[in-house]
Amino acid sequence: MTIKFKVHKEAGDCNARLATLTTPHGTVETPIFMPVGTQATVKTMAPYELEEIGAQIILSNTYHLYLRPGHDLIREAGGLHEFMQWNKPILTDSGGFQVFSLGDLRKITDDGVEFRSHIDGSKHFFSPEKATRVQMALGSDIAMAFDQCPPYPCERQEVARAVERTTRWAKRCLEAHSHEYQVLFGIVQGGVYEDLRRTSAEQLLEMDFPGYAIGGLSVGEPKPMMYEVLDYTTPLLPRDKPRYLMGVGTPDALLEGVARGVDMFDCVLPTRIARNGTVMTSRGKLVVRNAAYARDFEPMDPNCNCYACRNFSRAYIRHLIKSNEVLGIRLTTIHNLYFLLYLMAKVRQAIREDRFMEFKKEFLSNYEE
Amino acid sequence: MTIKFKVHKEAGDCNARLATLTTPHGTVETPIFMPVGTQATVKTMAPYELEEIGAQIILSNTYHLYLRPGHDLIREAGGLHEFMQWNKPILTDSGGFQVFSLGDLRKITDDGVEFRSHIDGSKHFFSPEKATRVQMALGSDIAMAFDQCPPYPCERQEVARAVERTTRWAKRCLEAHSHEYQVLFGIVQGGVYEDLRRTSAEQLLEMDFPGYAIGGLSVGEPKPMMYEVLDYTTPLLPRDKPRYLMGVGTPDALLEGVARGVDMFDCVLPTRIARNGTVMTSRGKLVVRNAAYARDFEPMDPNCNCYACRNFSRAYIRHLIKSNEVLGIRLTTIHNLYFLLYLMAKVRQAIREDRFMEFKKEFLSNYEE
Repeated sequence: MTIKFKVHKEAGDCNARLATLTTPHGTVETPIFMPVGTQATVKTMAPYELEEIGAQIILSNTYHLYLRPGHDLIREAGGLHEFMQWNKPILTDSGGFQVFSLGDLRKITDDGVEFRSHIDGSKHFFSPEKATRVQMALGSDIAMAFDQCPPYPCERQEVARAVERTTRWAKRCLEAHSHEYQVLFGIVQGGVYEDLRRTSAEQLLEMDFPGYAIGGLSVGEPKPMMYEVLDYTTPLLPRDKPRYLMGVGTPDALLEGVARGVDMFDCVLPTRIARNGTVMTSRGKLVVRNAAYARDFEPMDPNCNCYACRNFSRAYIRHLIKSNEVLGIRLTTIHNLYFLLYLMAKVRQAIREDRFMEFKKEFLSNYEE
Repeated sequence: MTIKFKVHKEAGDCNARLATLTTPHGTVETPIFMPVGTQATVKTMAPYELEEIGAQIILSNTYHLYLRPGHDLIREAGGLHEFMQWNKPILTDSGGFQVFSLGDLRKITDDGVEFRSHIDGSKHFFSPEKATRVQMALGSDIAMAFDQCPPYPCERQEVARAVERTTRWAKRCLEAHSHEYQVLFGIVQGGVYEDLRRTSAEQLLEMDFPGYAIGGLSVGEPKPMMYEVLDYTTPLLPRDKPRYLMGVGTPDALLEGVARGVDMFDCVLPTRIARNGTVMTSRGKLVVRNAAYARDFEPMDPNCNCYACRNFSRAYIRHLIKSNEVLGIRLTTIHNLYFLLYLMAKVRQAIREDRFMEFKKEFLSNYEE
């Protein structure tokens, strides 16, 4: 195993913990938010800008890179780190979530998933082995097992079948996986059914993955339901291994996840809403493209120290976005990622100083989703 | 007059000269290329990036800023420099070229031009006075007179009328112009007719502008014809004032313009072709989005020291552009602007060292347009 996870501190009044995750490309402090770089780039950002705003690890999408430019090309380039010139840790997903999301364009069997490319309609097949080999070619630090993620809502029986298949597929991924430095994480499924989550966790724990993700959440269920699932699922996972909640990126859900013992998060939300002219601020969401800000010469978030807020007004950024100027979405993206990364830095500081629950309460009392 | 122009050196074997142009927002070394920031942003670039690649002065478009976000809003923001956070010199055009380019959407009278917005079809009127007042509100360092730019080809009689009108309009601009620090340049018209260029220059020189532009070129005429016009037009302009050739930005035309005594240039070409996946290199144009570069792991221009060429491969940049990723066109834009700005720095160095014609010959022998 080429990663090392060390818990430095556990909160007394909740399950939050402060830890470090050491990977072949460097050490990450957790709890951490991972910006998403779907197509070997965090949309609009240069790698040095990601470093400047404090990104420590990013996520990239296997499905997208497999289709374009192709994992073989990226292997030829020397791997994903070299290709995109990001020299810190990278986690790749398995492509499972994306191919399952293709709806009519995919067909699932126990062997794997046949799907059509969203780019050109060409036919492809992903199996646990294929998803694993593609990730090996990409050379990410952390690869994810190919799982079946059921939608929400979903009948119990279907979720049960997805859990069984996820277990069988996890074994096949482990067998197919062999890499100089890359490690493979397992993914717990089970939807909103406590006993299925338990079954899934127990079966995956037997395979002794170096880290575990909680999948199948943030897929449409109400937030309180997600928190309830976390309440009973994170305690099923080993204390000495990283826990990763997939697809979560709203400030409130990050804090609730941390309180329940989650270490890692990823989400396209901050970058996606940024491109639509919406930013997260210490007071809540602000739609900077709204007419209300046309003559507002204040920064997007007066309490923020990011490049965008230190230099530019809401009026200017609104003008850029209304005019379809790239700099507009660059500035909102920088801000949103900085906001979440800085929030997580404050979370770590609060855990370190034994006041995480206090910090959480204070933050949420000001933040309107 | 709040600008100062000082010629430091003149080439012995051509009309190239090395000079400094001091404006209220700083001193510019000429010959210089001005990147174009049409909508209060040089497309895809942040202001600090422009500084990093050596931009000393930028151009912004009055027509576009008048329509969106509006010159009053920019005045409220504290002027264009403050609005876009660019603290070096800015030159604004008069909007004339843009409104004349609207074709069926505009109607010209001696009073001015009635036109419809390309954004929402709303009706507007630009007169010499209006174009001047809008530029005063923007607060650029250098404003341009509102001229009539005839197309190419164009009947002599029509060009003659455009020259007369440009002279009358230049007077009205001067009368309307009054600003704390901004200066106003005149624009010589006359198409490809030597006597009309002479008439235009003589009439404008009587008004004693602090600088003169050569307009109506690079509008479709063959390059040798443009060079011929420059051959007889630049000598008509005062030696002790800056000469600005509008709309020129190919490397060969820049060098030919410098050889004929031009000090300032602007063009959307480098940023426009960048967004289409084409870059200028020391060997000529390279269409990095072409399939030929899919697995080419060399930099775009191995002789270039820009951020893009220092860090990324043709294969990666091609992938980004094919995938519509903003970072792709950011990198090609950085490269193209760096290429032209660095070319002009080498031009200045060559003039300083009495070897400009030699430098020009050497450069052009390697460069394929």
